[in-house]
Amino acid sequence: MTKVCIGIDLGGTFVKFGLVDETRRAGKVFSLPTPPNPQPEDVVAVMADGVEKIIADHSLAREDILGVGVGAPGPLSVKRGILLQLPNMQTMRNYPLRDRVSEAVGFPATLENDANAAAYAEYLCGAGQGTRDMVMFTLGTGVGGGIILDGKVLHGANEMGGEIGHIIVQPGGRPCPCGQKGCLEQYGSAMNLAKYASRRIREEKPVSRLTEILKQNGEIDAKTIHAAGRDGDAFARELWEEMAMYLAVGCVSICRLFDPDRIVFAGGMTRAGEDLLEPIRRHFQREDWTMLETKTTLAIAALGADAGAIGAAGVAWNAFGTKSSSSS
Amino acid sequence: MTKVCIGIDLGGTFVKFGLVDETRRAGKVFSLPTPPNPQPEDVVAVMADGVEKIIADHSLAREDILGVGVGAPGPLSVKRGILLQLPNMQTMRNYPLRDRVSEAVGFPATLENDANAAAYAEYLCGAGQGTRDMVMFTLGTGVGGGIILDGKVLHGANEMGGEIGHIIVQPGGRPCPCGQKGCLEQYGSAMNLAKYASRRIREEKPVSRLTEILKQNGEIDAKTIHAAGRDGDAFARELWEEMAMYLAVGCVSICRLFDPDRIVFAGGMTRAGEDLLEPIRRHFQREDWTMLETKTTLAIAALGADAGAIGAAGVAWNAFGTKSSSSS
Repeated sequence: MTKVCIGIDLGGTFVKFGLVDETRRAGKVFSLPTPPNPQPEDVVAVMADGVEKIIADHSLAREDILGVGVGAPGPLSVKRGILLQLPNMQTMRNYPLRDRVSEAVGFPATLENDANAAAYAEYLCGAGQGTRDMVMFTLGTGVGGGIILDGKVLHGANEMGGEIGHIIVQPGGRPCPCGQKGCLEQYGSAMNLAKYASRRIREEKPVSRLTEILKQNGEIDAKTIHAAGRDGDAFARELWEEMAMYLAVGCVSICRLFDPDRIVFAGGMTRAGEDLLEPIRRHFQREDWTMLETKTTLAIAALGADAGAIGAAGVAWNAFGTKSSSSS
Repeated sequence: MTKVCIGIDLGGTFVKFGLVDETRRAGKVFSLPTPPNPQPEDVVAVMADGVEKIIADHSLAREDILGVGVGAPGPLSVKRGILLQLPNMQTMRNYPLRDRVSEAVGFPATLENDANAAAYAEYLCGAGQGTRDMVMFTLGTGVGGGIILDGKVLHGANEMGGEIGHIIVQPGGRPCPCGQKGCLEQYGSAMNLAKYASRRIREEKPVSRLTEILKQNGEIDAKTIHAAGRDGDAFARELWEEMAMYLAVGCVSICRLFDPDRIVFAGGMTRAGEDLLEPIRRHFQREDWTMLETKTTLAIAALGADAGAIGAAGVAWNAFGTKSSSSS
């Protein structure tokens, strides 16, 4: 029987479960509902239930399970296996989730930030497969991501690294709730694109379909901006192009520092597909140096919402699987 | 007898030699002149002479020398041990310096970029001693540097990483010969500060001592700008503050990505000492996020012009010394 690691992705609505073996991926990801207003024990109980279900579904022998990986929203300490705080789950503050899960399921466990876990999944068996160094930009409500160097997640000396959304791409630029100005997150996230569009519409009242939509609905979202741009709305296009330019500038700086094999884009914004990737690529080529040939390629993530659970399993595999697989 | 590695730093005027043992540093760095318009063999011969001299000076037994590290100006391939091209030494194009030196001296050898070697020296026994992750900004004619993560130099998937001077700190900003716009090098290097000052003086003719100096001398340098600022010249101060702000913005982005223990500043600009570090620190605190406490410290390099040779030896020690020192 092949050895496996089980991955668990803790979200606000669902807890997802996945499996990784030496072929890198095995079985479908499934979900259990996250209990409402949970105590920490409730969350651990759901995780233990899911692990038992995955064991039953795949007829796994316990001795073939090398470990369990948990992915959770940050901030957290990978080293200590502790959730520092969890948005919407106040009871989980400073909770040693890794060790509690390990005790509950009877396997060694790892804890990883969910954005890093998703990046690891893309590296292992998604859009970054076959690379050595990969950087992921997750473009959702905010801009998150993960940096994988030589098959390992970069955490930094104090576990505060890999915050791609908070590199400064415009000194003195748009204020960010983090306290900085001009963070990439202010230019490249769906929410901030919409906020910025709304502000400019109120101030400038441009001739644009977006002006009408904002008037009617009182709000606007990134999807609407994308759709209007597709239909040739000049103001919407300008917003979209500017976003792509800042993301490209972020990519150039990432290339100069890390020189990764690939930069992968994930998150809700990537539903725009080529309409997102094409302008980023175009601006990247314009902003990138000409001194040497940049070999980094840009791609859209492949695993969608499964990435968190698969990546959590992959991180556990990286911790527990390598030795036994190389000695077997 | 203690084991050692020998370091060689190839410069345009001098070849420098240093030594590293398990106590991290041993003996003074000394120089031999670089032959004028050399053939590759001439350079290798000087390197072999220096190695013999260091063996004699320290009465080393050949079996105690674990290897030789060579540092050279880039671009080069660490993996292949090859100089790709060398400014001012056209004959060294695509030259396999690592293996030629190894053959000439009879020890295994490594090749490393000289800026990375200098960063490694500061990490090993200079301003970054005791850190795990350290980033160095070398502020000279250009802006170079090196990134040390977990005791290893970051090179990137295609050996083009660690180019700190070419992260973009101002989109659409000052054009850089590399082909990009707004590179940190355009804002933080001595040469570019002087160039920018000269341009602004010609265009704006500010009431400033610098306007007089440029008129008299036809040129201006970073040292003059620093001195004028110290004496209260408002225009010179504005230039100096702006430079510090951009360097601070670079530091913030470096912290978000790498979260290093320390950022070290080296190169000619650091002769300004606290007059450089104080405004960078001040702007860093202003630009840095407030969401979490940044633990990265900023410091001036400690090893000066010796760093290249010591670091080259350190890189060799990292390659050849670790196993034998842990097994002894």
